[in-house]
Amino acid sequence: MADRPDEAQKVIQVQRKALAANEARAQRLRRGFAERGTLVVNLISSPGSGKTTLLERTVAMLRDELRCGVLEGDVATERDADRIRAQGVPAHQILTGGACHLDARLVERGLAEASFPDLDILFIENVGNLICPTNYDLGEDFKVALLSVAEGDDKPFKYPAIFSRAEVTVITKGDHIPHLAFDLDAVRDQITTLNPNGRFLVTSSTSGQGLDDWCGLLRAQLSAKRPHKG
Amino acid sequence: MADRPDEAQKVIQVQRKALAANEARAQRLRRGFAERGTLVVNLISSPGSGKTTLLERTVAMLRDELRCGVLEGDVATERDADRIRAQGVPAHQILTGGACHLDARLVERGLAEASFPDLDILFIENVGNLICPTNYDLGEDFKVALLSVAEGDDKPFKYPAIFSRAEVTVITKGDHIPHLAFDLDAVRDQITTLNPNGRFLVTSSTSGQGLDDWCGLLRAQLSAKRPHKG
Repeated sequence: MADRPDEAQKVIQVQRKALAANEARAQRLRRGFAERGTLVVNLISSPGSGKTTLLERTVAMLRDELRCGVLEGDVATERDADRIRAQGVPAHQILTGGACHLDARLVERGLAEASFPDLDILFIENVGNLICPTNYDLGEDFKVALLSVAEGDDKPFKYPAIFSRAEVTVITKGDHIPHLAFDLDAVRDQITTLNPNGRFLVTSSTSGQGLDDWCGLLRAQLSAKRPHKG
Repeated sequence: MADRPDEAQKVIQVQRKALAANEARAQRLRRGFAERGTLVVNLISSPGSGKTTLLERTVAMLRDELRCGVLEGDVATERDADRIRAQGVPAHQILTGGACHLDARLVERGLAEASFPDLDILFIENVGNLICPTNYDLGEDFKVALLSVAEGDDKPFKYPAIFSRAEVTVITKGDHIPHLAFDLDAVRDQITTLNPNGRFLVTSSTSGQGLDDWCGLLRAQLSAKRPHKG
């Protein structure tokens, strides 16, 4: 109780200031997105939950009706942006060089480098990490938490911050449920407890399960953002 | 180039100091473990890679010949420590309250609270995060990186820091390889590139594949640590 402030506490203090600076930049980004009528979705999950695969399927389903673009956040490699570009949709890789999350500064820089055309939907795929990206506002309209059924049905209560804050939770790899001891009802209950107003979708990028609902949700959010156009 | 130090850089500076303080504590822990002849293994992976399940199987295989104990790191919930205790092996839960990794201070506190008997092997299960735990020495003898086949075969190059530094990589859920497009050779090549001296094991906690090799590795490391005891 009488501990002197230690290094860990100093880190927390400086992180608070960094979060405040991030918040100001995120609001600037948000104003810009609002002016252009761009819906912005921040996807957060563990490594290997299927964020890039979901985005490949999503942009393939939407690209003929909506102008989509993707910012890909990774510690290293250009692989994910290459996968999106192979779908005929503009993508830009943001390499954090070791950092465990995207922040508004990295998104500002990434957008300046990307020179995307005007977009209807900008997807931001965060670094694979279920913890650190949670606190960093990127100017998005909403956060999406992905949870692969392979990760187990105890994860929402073990990582409560992201599942409390994500407006949408997308269960991925749903086609594997029959082969796993994955209690979907238990996951739904945990998420409802953490976030009573959250949306919950079960998908499979392999079978296509839930992808129409997911794209419908995106269309509805875009229409809500610019009602005079929709 | 002429940017003033910004908030992100300040965070990095303070984190460097915190890492230096951590290093001093970790060395103190390491001396204590050496005096007691306890082998200490720091397990690091994404959420849901199967760290706890591997530990359940491991302590069940070793508990009759070696005194094992487990420190469980999590953001929230006591579930993992409960699962280990159900195997008849002492376990203590360290809750980080939001922090994304264990550090030497949390391990010191956890050990003080746990009051474990003298141990042959102490397993430390880090917080589910493939990035942040990498830099924090916990006084361990070696780090083990786990990678579930469900996470995909592109992960070592996408998360190079942990796969460079972990002395052992354990592929988990190997029984699912036949159902997935998971290129084991590609993963092995990436890890060999990042860490030419690293050990590489393919396991399944369901089928038992690779667990004898894993336990053999642990026994060999323990014998190497205290050669006079055999």
